[in-house]
Amino acid sequence: MSNFADRLMEAVEHTGAPLCVGIDPFAELIPKAIFGDPREDAVALARFAEAVIDQAAGLAAAIKPQLGLFEAFGPAGYGVARDVCAYARSQGLPVILDAKRGDIGTTAEGYVRASLGPSPGFDADCVTVNPYMGADTLAPFGAYAQAQGKGVAVLVRTSNPGARDLQDLIVDGEPLWARTARMIAPLVEGLKGASGWSGLMVVAGATYPDEARRLRAILPDCLFLVPGYGAQGAGAADAMAGFVASPRGLRGGVVNSSRGVCYPPGLENETRISVWKDQIQRAMQSARDDLAGASLS
Amino acid sequence: MSNFADRLMEAVEHTGAPLCVGIDPFAELIPKAIFGDPREDAVALARFAEAVIDQAAGLAAAIKPQLGLFEAFGPAGYGVARDVCAYARSQGLPVILDAKRGDIGTTAEGYVRASLGPSPGFDADCVTVNPYMGADTLAPFGAYAQAQGKGVAVLVRTSNPGARDLQDLIVDGEPLWARTARMIAPLVEGLKGASGWSGLMVVAGATYPDEARRLRAILPDCLFLVPGYGAQGAGAADAMAGFVASPRGLRGGVVNSSRGVCYPPGLENETRISVWKDQIQRAMQSARDDLAGASLS
Repeated sequence: MSNFADRLMEAVEHTGAPLCVGIDPFAELIPKAIFGDPREDAVALARFAEAVIDQAAGLAAAIKPQLGLFEAFGPAGYGVARDVCAYARSQGLPVILDAKRGDIGTTAEGYVRASLGPSPGFDADCVTVNPYMGADTLAPFGAYAQAQGKGVAVLVRTSNPGARDLQDLIVDGEPLWARTARMIAPLVEGLKGASGWSGLMVVAGATYPDEARRLRAILPDCLFLVPGYGAQGAGAADAMAGFVASPRGLRGGVVNSSRGVCYPPGLENETRISVWKDQIQRAMQSARDDLAGASLS
Repeated sequence: MSNFADRLMEAVEHTGAPLCVGIDPFAELIPKAIFGDPREDAVALARFAEAVIDQAAGLAAAIKPQLGLFEAFGPAGYGVARDVCAYARSQGLPVILDAKRGDIGTTAEGYVRASLGPSPGFDADCVTVNPYMGADTLAPFGAYAQAQGKGVAVLVRTSNPGARDLQDLIVDGEPLWARTARMIAPLVEGLKGASGWSGLMVVAGATYPDEARRLRAILPDCLFLVPGYGAQGAGAADAMAGFVASPRGLRGGVVNSSRGVCYPPGLENETRISVWKDQIQRAMQSARDDLAGASLS
């Protein structure tokens, strides 16, 4: 059984850049003439997401379905999200399920089975979790991930403005997010692969490069999952501020782009699948090249 | 359109006690001879949950389905959870969906639609949310709840041992959970009903009565959602430490019991529905009477 961090970093080497394609299904942005209207039939979500995955092969190192946006379409949307995970894996793409779960013991185990577990679970490679309830609520995710070669991505310093409200509060001279990072440190070793990287990922927003650098110092072996690149305003250099230089480019995690690569401007009314494919490919290639060529400032 | 806090407190007056029945489906504890095995067919979950709801009528002021334990049974389990919410509402029971969601703007709106929104959403009366990502991630829940007469229950001080890891860290002389409480205070007024109580609920663990009293001082008008009573070891007086005395008993929220009322010892191998019903009724009546008779120490 392979290790998630190794699988993810192999995919980064294979594609040449740490691009993660986020699949955020918005009914108003999906080209309905091509895929159908997901508000009428959730299968349109599957058609759209699987077409995005087809374009991402060879360009993206991972895909990240945003579960909340599938859930917005009800139980059918939730079911489609699982099908999308299975399809991505069948295409060789690691899946980071963006579910942001978190709960006490037995319920945490329920979420572990639902997200990382085999059928009827999503069998994702990695799942995002929320640390507010404490280390004992993350332990079931860590234990399962270690046993099954999966990953866990913990929200540490998020990319939204409100991240300041709690995460930046000062505790004993350092921000809360640094305490969160120290709290999860005991899980690092168990998820470490032959590459030396750990499948305990930390969510570190691209919009806060200084924090990413400090976070790298606290957790040198953790892969970062970086939201906020592109649509949320951060460039490649900021997004990878916590990465490290290698002969083949910056390494140390994956940078997510959702709107930027899935919804190029003006495409929501497109009727021709060939045009849509071409535009999506271009957007993904552009993001890939941008990340591949970035250097630390 | 009525207000959630008013509906919940009317239900407390009607039943005479602030009992919330938590529906936590555990395959190993559900009497399979009566309801079927949910690992083979998720419809067994619906049979079990709806039978619990039938017994809860007149005794419970609300029900709280634990979504993570439904999700453990895959998309079918997720779908059953929505059916269970609809059934509870059809029986006049307010539904607090225990989903512990939290995400940035557009995704938060997805979770709002999924949990509180009408079909294909769950149309729950209230949903639990995680505050780690900040006030902007709670705002979409607050806005929708205010517009539609729903509630939002924010994790503030949870009942698990690991709650100490982050929630109790000291920030400017007070614990983080107190900062969380101050952060959500601007949402209180918008969810306030004619009763004077606000449908902005705070999750305050029964296992930490001192914290509950301090929390009441910070948020005098918020209803508490109290986990940790019964199976997690806290008695009625501790569970209601943050409640206030009224001529009809302690008021100020609801106290959740899941295992204690849904899984009386030895019942997992029961084959007779009549015996099961009788035992569940007894357990619920006992919890109801315990909470109805409690006084502040």
